[in-house]
Amino acid sequence: VSEKKTSRPSEFDLIAGLFAPLAKAPGAYGLRDDAAAISPRKGHELIVTTDALVEGVHFLPGDPPETVARKALRVNLSDLAAKGAAPVGYFLALSLPARLPYAWLKAFASGLGRDQKTFCVSLMGGDTTSTPGPLTLAITAVGSAPRGRMIRRAGAKPGHDVFVTGTIGDAGAGLEILSTRAGREARTAASVQKLINRYRLPTPRLKFGQALRNVASAALDVSDGLIADLGHIAEVSGVRIAIEAEKIPRSSALRAMWGDGIEAIVRAATSGDDYEITFTAAPGRAVAAAAKKAGVRVTRIGRVEKGAGVQLLGGTGEIAVSRAGYIHF
Amino acid sequence: VSEKKTSRPSEFDLIAGLFAPLAKAPGAYGLRDDAAAISPRKGHELIVTTDALVEGVHFLPGDPPETVARKALRVNLSDLAAKGAAPVGYFLALSLPARLPYAWLKAFASGLGRDQKTFCVSLMGGDTTSTPGPLTLAITAVGSAPRGRMIRRAGAKPGHDVFVTGTIGDAGAGLEILSTRAGREARTAASVQKLINRYRLPTPRLKFGQALRNVASAALDVSDGLIADLGHIAEVSGVRIAIEAEKIPRSSALRAMWGDGIEAIVRAATSGDDYEITFTAAPGRAVAAAAKKAGVRVTRIGRVEKGAGVQLLGGTGEIAVSRAGYIHF
Repeated sequence: VSEKKTSRPSEFDLIAGLFAPLAKAPGAYGLRDDAAAISPRKGHELIVTTDALVEGVHFLPGDPPETVARKALRVNLSDLAAKGAAPVGYFLALSLPARLPYAWLKAFASGLGRDQKTFCVSLMGGDTTSTPGPLTLAITAVGSAPRGRMIRRAGAKPGHDVFVTGTIGDAGAGLEILSTRAGREARTAASVQKLINRYRLPTPRLKFGQALRNVASAALDVSDGLIADLGHIAEVSGVRIAIEAEKIPRSSALRAMWGDGIEAIVRAATSGDDYEITFTAAPGRAVAAAAKKAGVRVTRIGRVEKGAGVQLLGGTGEIAVSRAGYIHF
Repeated sequence: VSEKKTSRPSEFDLIAGLFAPLAKAPGAYGLRDDAAAISPRKGHELIVTTDALVEGVHFLPGDPPETVARKALRVNLSDLAAKGAAPVGYFLALSLPARLPYAWLKAFASGLGRDQKTFCVSLMGGDTTSTPGPLTLAITAVGSAPRGRMIRRAGAKPGHDVFVTGTIGDAGAGLEILSTRAGREARTAASVQKLINRYRLPTPRLKFGQALRNVASAALDVSDGLIADLGHIAEVSGVRIAIEAEKIPRSSALRAMWGDGIEAIVRAATSGDDYEITFTAAPGRAVAAAAKKAGVRVTRIGRVEKGAGVQLLGGTGEIAVSRAGYIHF
C-alpha cells in the first residue's frame, strides 16, 4: 500500500521529521499514538489553558516563524504563570495554508525546540491540517500546581494592593512600529528593537507566578490591556480597582517613543500583548520577597476598593478611558 | 471604563452567554478564569488528545452548526474511546469569521450542550478569536484511564486477530452524497439520509473502548481510512496486517449505493471519517464478551503477521490499493 506523493511532505512526514523530536516526555509516546498520558505529581493537580493565534490577527505575515512559534507557546505559558502553575507540556493544533514553504515550518519547529529547553516543557501531542485560510494555531498548555492552590481571578478584596510586573505598553508600541510607515523608518534604533522584541517575544513570568502562590489574592496576565484585564479581576472578584496612572511602569524606550503625558499612559494601559502579571495582595512584605526571589521588578499601581469596575486616577481625579483594551471583535 | 460596542456580541458576551453555561465542572470555574484545574481520580491518569477542524476541509460550509459542533466534539471523544479512556472534559479554541451570524454560534453551542449530556463531559475552557479565513476550531479532549493502561497503537503481535466495530465506508459515501450532483438528487431516500448522518455525526465507541482495556493489544479510531489507519498500527507495532477484503463490514445502505464488488470494498476501506475502532487482540473469547457488554457489532477482518505494511487480500490474492486513505496535503 503506497501513499500519494505531493511536493510538500505529508502530514505524517511533517510529524515524524519536525515535531516528533520535540515530544520527548514519556507520556507523549513520540507522537506515535492518538493521545498522551499525563499524571500530576502527588498532591498536585493539572492546570490547563488554551489560546489560538491567527496570522494577520495575532501575528503579522512577515513575523519570523521562530518568533511566531515561541510567542504562541509563551502566551500559553504566561497563562500558567499567572495561575501559579509550573509548565508540564503542550498540545499543538496547526492549520497550514498550502503555500507555506517547508522552510517556514522547519524554522517554526526550531523555535518551539528552543523555547522548550528554556521553559522545561515538552510537546505532548497535536494535529496538523490544511486550510484555505490564514495560518492558524491553537496551543493547549498543561501545567501543575498544588491541589486547590491555583491563583484565581476571584479573590481580590477591598484593602488589598494592586501590582504589575515589568513595564506596560512596550508590546503595543512594538506592534505600532511594525504596522506603520513611521515605525518602519525608525526601526534601526536599539530602543525600537527592544519594543519590537517585546511584541514578538513576551516573557512568561513563570518563576514569579509560582512565588505568588501563597501571596496573591487574584492574578492574571496582561494580554488584552492592563485596564481591560484588571476589569476581569474586578468583575469576578466583585470589587472596584483604582489605579494611579502615574505609577504604571513604563520603559525608557516607550517614553522615548510615546512621551510622558497622560495620553501616553492611557495608551500604555490600553495596549495589549504585554504578558506581564497583574495581581492583588493583602498589604505586607510578601510581594517584595516574592519579587526578590524571582528577580522580577514589581510595581504597586493601586488598590482594591468596594464597588465595581476599574478607575484610572490622575492628578486631578478620574481619567476617562474610552477603550479599555484590545476588543476581539 | 466602557467597551466599544459592535453589532455582534463581544468575545466576553459570547463566552458569558453561550459557552459559560456549558462549563459546569467545578475545575472549569464557569470560564471566568484563565485556566482550568483537573485531577485524575486515584490510580488514574489523564489521557489528552487534540483535533482541529477547518470549514471546507473537515466539514462543509452548508453543514448544520449543531452537527459541526457535535462532530468536532465526537471526533475527539472517538480518540479517547480508542485509547480506552473515559471522557472528562474538553477545551475549545474557536476562530470565527466576521460574517458568521450569532444564530449560527447559538446553534453551535446548543449542539455542544446536547452532546455534553449524551457523553457526560463538560466544557473546561477555551479561546475565541476572529479570523479573516474559514471557521476553524480546535478541541482538546481530556479523558481518564487507569494509570499505564491506555490502549496504544504499539502492541499488535503476530498471531493476533484484527477487528473493527460497526460498518466501514458509510461516512465516505455520505460525504460523496453531500458533495456531488448525483448525491443531491438522491438525498431523499432513508438509506441516503443514514449515510449523510454517518458523515455528519460519528458515534464515539466510548463504552466499547473502555471494555477493550484489558483485551486489545493495539487500537485506534478509523479517521483517515481503515487501511491507512491499520498502517499506523502496523508501523508502530512493527508487524504486517493482512485484511480479508470480503470480511470488511459494510451497511446495506452502502451496498445499495456503491455495489458489492471488490472496487466498492476498496473504496470503503480507503474512505475516511468512519470513527469506528479498529484493533488487534490475542485469539480468545474476550473480544466477543466485550462486544456483548457494550452492545456493539464487532467483525474479525484479518490477522497480524510478521512483516510490514497492510495487505488487502481478495479471492485471488493481494489487491493493489493505490490510495490508502485520506491524504491531508
